[in-house]
Amino acid sequence: MRFVDMIERKAEGLALSSEEIRFMVDGYVSGAIPDYQMSAMTMAIMLKGMSDVETAQLTMAMMESGDTVDLSDLPGIKVDKHSTGGVGDTTTLVVAPLVAACGGTVAKMSGRGLGHTGGTLDKIESVPGASVEIPLEEFKDIVRRNGVAVIGQTAKLVPADKKIYALRDVTATVRSIPLIASSIMSKKLASGADAIVLDVKVGSGAFMRTLPEAKKLASLMVSIGELTGRRVRALITDMNQPLGMAVGNALEVREAIQLLNGDIPEDDPLYRVCLLLGIHMLMLADLAESEEEAAAKLKAAIHDGSGLRHLKKMFELQHGDASYIDPQKINQLLKVNKLIEVPAETSGYVTAMNAEKIGTAAQLLGAGRATKEDQIDHAVGLVMKVRCGSYIKEGEPLCTMYVNDETRLAESIRMFREGIEISSFPKKVPPMVYEVITRENI
Amino acid sequence: MRFVDMIERKAEGLALSSEEIRFMVDGYVSGAIPDYQMSAMTMAIMLKGMSDVETAQLTMAMMESGDTVDLSDLPGIKVDKHSTGGVGDTTTLVVAPLVAACGGTVAKMSGRGLGHTGGTLDKIESVPGASVEIPLEEFKDIVRRNGVAVIGQTAKLVPADKKIYALRDVTATVRSIPLIASSIMSKKLASGADAIVLDVKVGSGAFMRTLPEAKKLASLMVSIGELTGRRVRALITDMNQPLGMAVGNALEVREAIQLLNGDIPEDDPLYRVCLLLGIHMLMLADLAESEEEAAAKLKAAIHDGSGLRHLKKMFELQHGDASYIDPQKINQLLKVNKLIEVPAETSGYVTAMNAEKIGTAAQLLGAGRATKEDQIDHAVGLVMKVRCGSYIKEGEPLCTMYVNDETRLAESIRMFREGIEISSFPKKVPPMVYEVITRENI
Repeated sequence: MRFVDMIERKAEGLALSSEEIRFMVDGYVSGAIPDYQMSAMTMAIMLKGMSDVETAQLTMAMMESGDTVDLSDLPGIKVDKHSTGGVGDTTTLVVAPLVAACGGTVAKMSGRGLGHTGGTLDKIESVPGASVEIPLEEFKDIVRRNGVAVIGQTAKLVPADKKIYALRDVTATVRSIPLIASSIMSKKLASGADAIVLDVKVGSGAFMRTLPEAKKLASLMVSIGELTGRRVRALITDMNQPLGMAVGNALEVREAIQLLNGDIPEDDPLYRVCLLLGIHMLMLADLAESEEEAAAKLKAAIHDGSGLRHLKKMFELQHGDASYIDPQKINQLLKVNKLIEVPAETSGYVTAMNAEKIGTAAQLLGAGRATKEDQIDHAVGLVMKVRCGSYIKEGEPLCTMYVNDETRLAESIRMFREGIEISSFPKKVPPMVYEVITRENI
Repeated sequence: MRFVDMIERKAEGLALSSEEIRFMVDGYVSGAIPDYQMSAMTMAIMLKGMSDVETAQLTMAMMESGDTVDLSDLPGIKVDKHSTGGVGDTTTLVVAPLVAACGGTVAKMSGRGLGHTGGTLDKIESVPGASVEIPLEEFKDIVRRNGVAVIGQTAKLVPADKKIYALRDVTATVRSIPLIASSIMSKKLASGADAIVLDVKVGSGAFMRTLPEAKKLASLMVSIGELTGRRVRALITDMNQPLGMAVGNALEVREAIQLLNGDIPEDDPLYRVCLLLGIHMLMLADLAESEEEAAAKLKAAIHDGSGLRHLKKMFELQHGDASYIDPQKINQLLKVNKLIEVPAETSGYVTAMNAEKIGTAAQLLGAGRATKEDQIDHAVGLVMKVRCGSYIKEGEPLCTMYVNDETRLAESIRMFREGIEISSFPKKVPPMVYEVITRENI
C-alpha cells in the first residue's frame, strides 16, 4: 500500500477503503507518512469530498489513535453536547447542570477556546480553585455523585486529531466538512458518550457561514453517529450575533448563573438555545418522551433552583470555591480597573451584529487567546446592551467593556464598532434556531 | 502576504497574482515555505487549475529561480526542440544536426532519462569519451563552429523545478497540466532559445494518455511562449507504439546514424516525426518560408551527408571518439553477451503496442534507470521487428534483445510480450502525427 497512490485516487474523486483510511491515520500519527503527503491528501479530501461511510471510518480510525474513555460503569445513558464554537455561548454551563438536575448523566470533556470563540474550560477556571484537570476515576466519581462534571480532554485523546488539525490550520484545509465532522466526532466518541446533541452554528461568527454548509455538516455528523452506533441529533442555530449578552469568562459564568437563577426571560436567545439543547439531551437519554415533557422538566429545574445547585456542586467537587456560584458574589470575580461604555455614534436600528468581530473585541481585551500560549484574564470582556433589532439613540451605550490592560483597548473598541451595523430602518432579525437534524430527517 | 491565504484562494478556484506566484516560488526555493504547504498548493492547483497567464507567470518565476543561459552572442535565431518523453525517440540526434546542416543554430540543454523513457544525454554518453558536461563558453564555441551541441542542464538551471518536481512525484500531483507546462517551459526558457518546437506525445507510453489532454498541454505551452516572447510550436505525435525500432542507448544512436545516412525509408514513423520537427524548427528560425521548402532542405541534408557530418563533428567537439559515428563502426558499441530473439506465441496482426511496457522491458535489461542512482548499460536494449499493423507468424521474432545481465531477463521478456497485442484481424493503425499547434490556432 503506497500512500502516494491513495492520494492519487482521492484526487480523482475515488473513495478510500476502510483499510486505507486506517493506514493513513496510523501512518500519519506514527510519522511514517510525512506532513507533505498528508497535506496533499487533506487538500484532495477538501476539494473532492468523502462519502458518509468514508468519514465515519476516518472518525473511527482517529478515535482509535489514542485513549478512549469508558463510561460504561456510570448509570444510565451518558449524554453529551457539543457546539461548533460560538461567541457568548455559555450553554454548557447552563444545560449540563440542568440535564443532571433532571436525572441525566453528563460526563463531559471539553476543549480550550482559541481565537474569537470562548472555551468552557477557561470559563470554569475563572472561579478560584476550580480545576478541569481531574483524573479519570475522580471525574467519574464526581459524575456519579452530582450527575455532571466538565473537564479537559486528556493529552492522549485522539492524537490524530491534534496532528491533523495543526496541519490543516497552516494548509488552508480547515473548511473541509468531512474533516471538521471527523475531528469533532472522533473526540466525542472517544469521550465515551452514548448520546450527543450537537449545536452547529451558522453565521458571521461561525465556522459554517451558510445554512446549506451547516446542514451538510450537521447531517454528516448525525450519519456518523448512526454508523458508529451512537444516538446523535444536531441543532442548527444562529451565530449572526453573539448568543448571550456577555462575552468573557467570568462574565459568561455570571450569565449562566443568572439563567439558572430564573433571571433571564424565556424569549432570550441564550435561554431558547439552552432549552432546546436540554430537550434533545433528555429525549436522547430516554428521560422524556416528548419535547413538551422535556421542556417542562428543564423549566422546573430552573424554577426550583436544582439546576443552579448542580452547577454549584460541580464547582465544589472540581475543587473550586463554589461560594462564587451565586448571583451576587460572582460579581467579585468581575472587579476590573475600568468599566468603559462604548456609545453609539448614530441613532437607529441594530440591523446586523458580526459575532466574529465582537468575539475578537473581547479577545483583544484579554478574554481569549490568539495563540495557545496566550494568558487569559478571566475578569475582562464585554456585556452587550443591544441585540439585532434593538433601537438605539446616538450616545447611548452599545456595550460595557470590562478592562484591565488598556494596551489594545482602542483596537478592541474599533473592532466592536465594526461588528455592529446601525441603520435608519429595521431589518428582519435572523431566526435563532433553523433546524433540528435527527436520524429520521437526514 | 501569508502563504496559507494564497492556498485558500487557489483552493476556492481563484487566480494568484504575479506577485504571489513569485512569492511562492522564491519562498519554496529558499525554504521559507515548507514542503507541507507547497504540497497542499500543488494539489489545489492540480484540482482547481491555473489560467494561461498564471502558468506563464509561474514559468517565468521558476525560470528566474536559478541561472539563465544567455545565447545572444550566437548568430541567428537559436532554435530548440523538446519532447515530453517517449520510447525509442531518438529525434534529437537526428534533427539537431540536420537543422544545423541547414544553417540553424541548435544550442540544446537536455535532461536525463528516467523510468521507461530514454534520455538524450545517456545516448550521447554511449559513445566513448563523449561528454555532456561542458562549460558554457566551450558549449557556445562548439555551437559557433558546428551549429549544434547537446549538453546536460547545469545544476543551477531552474532549481525551483527540481524541488517542486520532487515534491509532486511523492504527492500525486505529477499529472497537473499547468505544472507540467511550467516545468518544461521554465527549463526551455532558461536554456536561452528564441524558438522552440515541442513534441507532445500522446498514448500508452506518454505522460498524456488522451488527445484532449495532450492538446491542452500543447496549447498551454504555445501560449506560455506567446506570453514570454518566444516563438513556440507544438506537434502532437503518437506514443501508442515506440517511435523508432530501437530502444536502448547505443542502439538508438545507431538508428539515428542510419536515418542520417539515408538508410531509413521516408514513411518510417521516426523519419516522419524527425522531418516534421525539422520543418517547424527551420520555419521558426526563418530558414524556410514554407513547409515544402523546409522539407526539401532537410532531405537534401540527408542525401548529401551533411546532417551525419554535423552529428559526427558534434561528437568530436564534445570529446567523443567520433569514428563510431559510422553505420558500420557503431556496431562495435553493441557487443553484448547474448542476442535473444523473442518469438511470437501466436500468428496474427499486431493491433496494439504499449510503449510504456516496451520501454520498461528495455529498462529491465539495463538500458534505463528506475532511480537516479542506477547505472546504465549503454549497449543493451531491444530492436523491434514489428510495428502496429504488422502481420507475424507464430515463432517469428517480435524483437531482438541485446543482453548482458540476465538477472531480470525473464521479467523483461514477460513485460515486452505484455506490451504487444496480436489479434486475428487487423485494427486501424493510429496516426503518427495528430496535429500541429501554432500561435495561430491555439
